Amino acid sequence: MELLARAQQLERDGRDIIHMEVGEPDFPTPAAVLAAAHAGLADGRVRYTPAAGLPALREAIAAWYEQAFGAKVAPSRIIVTAGASGALMLALALLTEPGDGWLLTDPGYPCNRELVAAFNGRPLPLHVDAGTGFQPTAALLREAWQDGVRGLVVATPANPTGAVLTPNELDALADTTAALGGTLIVDEIYQGLVYDAPAASVLARRQDCFVVNSFSKYFGMTGWRLGWLVVPEGAERQAEMLAQHYFISASTPAQLAALAAFSKDNLVDLELRRQILAERRDVLVDGLESLGLRIAARPSGAFYVWTDVSARTDDSTKLAHRLLEEAGVATTPGLDFVSREAHRYLRIAYTTDVARIAQALERISRVI
Amino acid sequence: MELLARAQQLERDGRDIIHMEVGEPDFPTPAAVLAAAHAGLADGRVRYTPAAGLPALREAIAAWYEQAFGAKVAPSRIIVTAGASGALMLALALLTEPGDGWLLTDPGYPCNRELVAAFNGRPLPLHVDAGTGFQPTAALLREAWQDGVRGLVVATPANPTGAVLTPNELDALADTTAALGGTLIVDEIYQGLVYDAPAASVLARRQDCFVVNSFSKYFGMTGWRLGWLVVPEGAERQAEMLAQHYFISASTPAQLAALAAFSKDNLVDLELRRQILAERRDVLVDGLESLGLRIAARPSGAFYVWTDVSARTDDSTKLAHRLLEEAGVATTPGLDFVSREAHRYLRIAYTTDVARIAQALERISRVI
Repeated sequence: MELLARAQQLERDGRDIIHMEVGEPDFPTPAAVLAAAHAGLADGRVRYTPAAGLPALREAIAAWYEQAFGAKVAPSRIIVTAGASGALMLALALLTEPGDGWLLTDPGYPCNRELVAAFNGRPLPLHVDAGTGFQPTAALLREAWQDGVRGLVVATPANPTGAVLTPNELDALADTTAALGGTLIVDEIYQGLVYDAPAASVLARRQDCFVVNSFSKYFGMTGWRLGWLVVPEGAERQAEMLAQHYFISASTPAQLAALAAFSKDNLVDLELRRQILAERRDVLVDGLESLGLRIAARPSGAFYVWTDVSARTDDSTKLAHRLLEEAGVATTPGLDFVSREAHRYLRIAYTTDVARIAQALERISRVI
Repeated sequence: MELLARAQQLERDGRDIIHMEVGEPDFPTPAAVLAAAHAGLADGRVRYTPAAGLPALREAIAAWYEQAFGAKVAPSRIIVTAGASGALMLALALLTEPGDGWLLTDPGYPCNRELVAAFNGRPLPLHVDAGTGFQPTAALLREAWQDGVRGLVVATPANPTGAVLTPNELDALADTTAALGGTLIVDEIYQGLVYDAPAASVLARRQDCFVVNSFSKYFGMTGWRLGWLVVPEGAERQAEMLAQHYFISASTPAQLAALAAFSKDNLVDLELRRQILAERRDVLVDGLESLGLRIAARPSGAFYVWTDVSARTDDSTKLAHRLLEEAGVATTPGLDFVSREAHRYLRIAYTTDVARIAQALERISRVI
């Protein structure tokens, strides 16, 4: 936050800042989605939708699960929410009794800890490192499990590491969580943004997990704030009632826009974007390595490179400040994402184009 | 919920249903707001906003407080949220430790209880009746206060009663809450929808309360899901950080649209709508009274009539079902809003036009 404020200040002072700190690509809202928004708003009748979302949108999401992943998900199991934040909030509210522990991968997305704490759960770190590609394994999960643990939240692809679980690995985590008497919440918000294997969903294989998803990343709709939660059979009604109590409903313009997200033309556009991001990843990873920085586990998804800068500094936060001040390159220090050895890491996002990435690499090389 | 589902079923079966159960007027999004949305979306750059909202929107809200109510509120104290739901959630998250009690007026908006419970607070009823115009008084508040109470949530105008507190009455509640060591949260989401006195804000007189507001009701933007929270000085930074963690930001299209909400032309449109609602209130209240139903306290705001049907039935829920089945008039039974003597009351909303209200009255007269 402090670095972001400083980057904005420098920009106001006229400095050219390359933004590699933000979790938001530079693409605009896809044309088909934008057109659907304009058309949907035309008559101005922007009313509350049902608490679980527009029926047509829930059906479209269900159809997409089947088409893209061969996953059979009844629309009644899908609750449309204000972003993935709303979806995770709903899942945690449904599942958490005061004092329940939730294992969260460390490194991981820091807001998850705050959401667990909001519902008076206890966030518990599940430490992962390069040895397992920055993802948990069934063995690590068993080791970290303790009395009072309610379940595991795992993201694939993950933020800040871009680490992707294979379907078999994810299945093993789900089996182990179930065997330990817990519940698995899978964060699939970067689903589709994968570069080394086909996109996947845990829902293709099993129906006992809670799944958080979003229109923000793959579908390019960050500012619209729209996501969804998939609940197991039997939890539909309680999830819908909580959504009604907590949110009334998700934003109607966003829902109208999202109806076009699964159209054939739009999916073609999104595939092009994915290819652009894949190229950016390669340029950034190769470039960082050629500067003598280590990428302990090559990222396979999302749009982040979890960069080990320990060969060049013993304090990644200081380096982030120097990169900003001396090179005009904004990155995020490891401290924001991990509790152990944070000083080794920077998260560098490839949410800017290849030319800017090349320019950033050149500027970074002058500092380190 | 059950009645709503049944009303929708009857409509699908071809029955003509007059909807007096929904908390959403029949007006479309105001023209100026809709135009701002289309213009704001034109280039498709729908990015996350800062967590507390677009700076221009926070400034517009602050300017409107000064212009409409003579209230000086720094933009830094305003956090833009996903509806008033998000605002109340944020306030309760900031203020509630596990086990803290919150006094909520009974009758009142039922979701408030769920939000208090979500953050592991204890919702405590503060019973109010026609004797005090269905609003708490300082004396009632002192009487209801007990160990472990964190504060009071009060709404003016109130749902389901349309009851409005005078500035002096609200000031007395704020003084008493402060004297008892608690915090007052004022729900002003129906602010502006008042028919017997000028619109008011607690912020004109004091700065120590948390204030929840919304673009849904007076500003006619229900489906957009946009509201805001005003926090006292000193709480700005923590509120902003929690908003970041819980929500990332509110929907950008809604924020862009809302920038036009305070324009002079739009405020003229909203005043016309207010006059239309005032006329509807008079028609509905007079009509219900002429049917022998009692309005224990004439509503001065919002768009609900809290109708005492005890002269005609000893079970308002049964009556609501009969009105729906036999007359095609959908209302909400008292049970949804109050814990005592719920069987006496129906909430009847004047969110439909005068001709339909007259038709509804005629149909109701045939049933009772």
